[in-house]
Amino acid sequence: MRDIAVIGIGQTKVEENWDKSLRELAGDAALAALMDSGLIKTDALYVGNMMSGSANRQQQLGAYIADWVGMRYTEAIRLEAACSSGAAAFRSAVMAVASGVVETALAVGVEKMTDSPGNEITADLATASDADWEAGQGLSFVALNALIMRRYMHEFGWKKEDFAPFAVNAHNNAMHNPYARFHEPTTIEEYLKAPMVAEPINLMDASAIGDGAAACVIVPMEKLQRVAHRPIVRVAASAAATDTIAIDHRKDPLWLKSANASGRMAYAQAGIHPKDIDFFELHDAFSIMAVLSLEANGYTDKGTGPKLALDGEILIGGRIPIATRGGLKARGHPVGATGMYQIVEAVQQLRGEAAGSQVENAVYGMTQNIGGSGSNIITHIFQRI
Amino acid sequence: MRDIAVIGIGQTKVEENWDKSLRELAGDAALAALMDSGLIKTDALYVGNMMSGSANRQQQLGAYIADWVGMRYTEAIRLEAACSSGAAAFRSAVMAVASGVVETALAVGVEKMTDSPGNEITADLATASDADWEAGQGLSFVALNALIMRRYMHEFGWKKEDFAPFAVNAHNNAMHNPYARFHEPTTIEEYLKAPMVAEPINLMDASAIGDGAAACVIVPMEKLQRVAHRPIVRVAASAAATDTIAIDHRKDPLWLKSANASGRMAYAQAGIHPKDIDFFELHDAFSIMAVLSLEANGYTDKGTGPKLALDGEILIGGRIPIATRGGLKARGHPVGATGMYQIVEAVQQLRGEAAGSQVENAVYGMTQNIGGSGSNIITHIFQRI
Repeated sequence: MRDIAVIGIGQTKVEENWDKSLRELAGDAALAALMDSGLIKTDALYVGNMMSGSANRQQQLGAYIADWVGMRYTEAIRLEAACSSGAAAFRSAVMAVASGVVETALAVGVEKMTDSPGNEITADLATASDADWEAGQGLSFVALNALIMRRYMHEFGWKKEDFAPFAVNAHNNAMHNPYARFHEPTTIEEYLKAPMVAEPINLMDASAIGDGAAACVIVPMEKLQRVAHRPIVRVAASAAATDTIAIDHRKDPLWLKSANASGRMAYAQAGIHPKDIDFFELHDAFSIMAVLSLEANGYTDKGTGPKLALDGEILIGGRIPIATRGGLKARGHPVGATGMYQIVEAVQQLRGEAAGSQVENAVYGMTQNIGGSGSNIITHIFQRI
Repeated sequence: MRDIAVIGIGQTKVEENWDKSLRELAGDAALAALMDSGLIKTDALYVGNMMSGSANRQQQLGAYIADWVGMRYTEAIRLEAACSSGAAAFRSAVMAVASGVVETALAVGVEKMTDSPGNEITADLATASDADWEAGQGLSFVALNALIMRRYMHEFGWKKEDFAPFAVNAHNNAMHNPYARFHEPTTIEEYLKAPMVAEPINLMDASAIGDGAAACVIVPMEKLQRVAHRPIVRVAASAAATDTIAIDHRKDPLWLKSANASGRMAYAQAGIHPKDIDFFELHDAFSIMAVLSLEANGYTDKGTGPKLALDGEILIGGRIPIATRGGLKARGHPVGATGMYQIVEAVQQLRGEAAGSQVENAVYGMTQNIGGSGSNIITHIFQRI
């Protein structure tokens, strides 16, 4: 298996973008990534998207986007794993290049959730849960996460206000990210005043949907001469694991076993430990998911996630900065694109291009994309060399 | 890149199966393939499916099926390329094993098109066409293929009855396939009497939808000791290419450029020519697609596809037998599963397990799965060794 490097990144601003179609959004990110890489096309295209079939009534985004970005006839495919579709596309690109089947690959994550013909987004999002055991009973994703958060607070004695630092950190970091959906800082006071969505989850615990696309170009490390003028970002690890879709089928609803499994595989591949990671772009779709991710990946003990945040360790300059460009909470969560945004942001950090929320001298950055309520988790570690 | 062998196959009967859910269908095929392989699980699962998000309101079939078949925590992902989703899943499995990322992989194609909560199948199928330029104008897939067939008849002077041998061959072969949807033979006379769907396509030119699943287990060739008691089926080639989704964006609507491209890549990988192929499981979603596939892959000249059929060359014992187990026409076309059915059937032929429609002494079999109207085409060549 060959070593892989990311040589190009691109993204669009997460927003309600009624002026751009699905292919225009994906194309903007893909062409930006190609331009950044110095290539005009790649040997293959991998597209991450969750719900264009229902929301946009357009399937086979592989051929659809390949044609749009000037790669007609090129091999192209769509990957879907609910909210982890973006990282799934990147992982497929990595495997294709690693196998030697292709020499260069473009991975794009895209989701257009507003102004769509089949606009029932909450119902569409619920297709990431179990149709028989969860969605069929009327549970939306925020309701599922509310049940988890309530249980977590009960088990470990944390109060609602102890979750405030996650939203405050995400919004403050997003201030410096021109591609983020929100550019308003927030405070603990505002967090506590936010309207309730599904108790105990309020508006500041929940990430925002949006339209957006992000993209990367990857090549084998041995082809890297052409980008020697800037730091090389190597894919140090790529790992994936699944769990049951329905949360009640798990022994412990408060332990993301698939995050733990894919995280451990990733550390092993990279030959490092959690303490070596300089920042962690985690999947903070809800504050409680940020907590569970920090615990499952070895950054803090089970039941202690809020303490890490209360102690300031998740901030830029802390022990394990998270959501450094705003995270799902404030950059926004265009679901099938989110995993690619995380990767693009990790590359920015490692290149030193994250002005305003730069993690100084970062060498290792980790991204983790979660599909469903922890049912499909894909982890990547990137290394500056 | 490592050499790959198929060591297990499984499938369900294509039918209106109201007694089985999506996960039961996929599970039945997957467990049959695992049992056939002698393995109880694999390192990764690749699922091909087109429209479970809209038709069944269930996404992330990777985790969904992994859990159901006893592979909880295993890496699993869904691939989508409209009607070529099945072959896409297989190709991803091949790349994963070839890269060395995993040692064993299970590929499953599944589609449940009847008795579904979101049952608007014709509209759902149309999401494989261009939402802006085709579906948005009211074109269904049968209408698109009717336009192509009409143009073909006009350009090359063929009459409606010249297409009859495709349906007759498919239905006669399906008689011997217990997993086929139809077990009624047909004749030229019945073909000519069939009700018109979208002129010139009648009911006997169109494949049937259905519920079904098919699956394969693959391993590196070097791990093959355990199945030495039966013929080894090697993956001699795997290739993919795209084209525009909208047909009117192509220079020539009667030439499947992506079939030609992926076919030529596949022949080159296998080191053979069209004349070396002993049978061809092509994508006869409509008779005209069988014609265009035979031409684009070098089995006959452009404009002469019907002659090959009229001369009996597509029959078992002919120069290039097609639809040897019924094809999409008579085995049925559960769209995201179809590409996997083709592969399962090719393995049956090469193992000598196709009683009734066996191609004697077959060494090379080719499968070609088409997404949309030729917009995503994935070709595999299998070799008995």
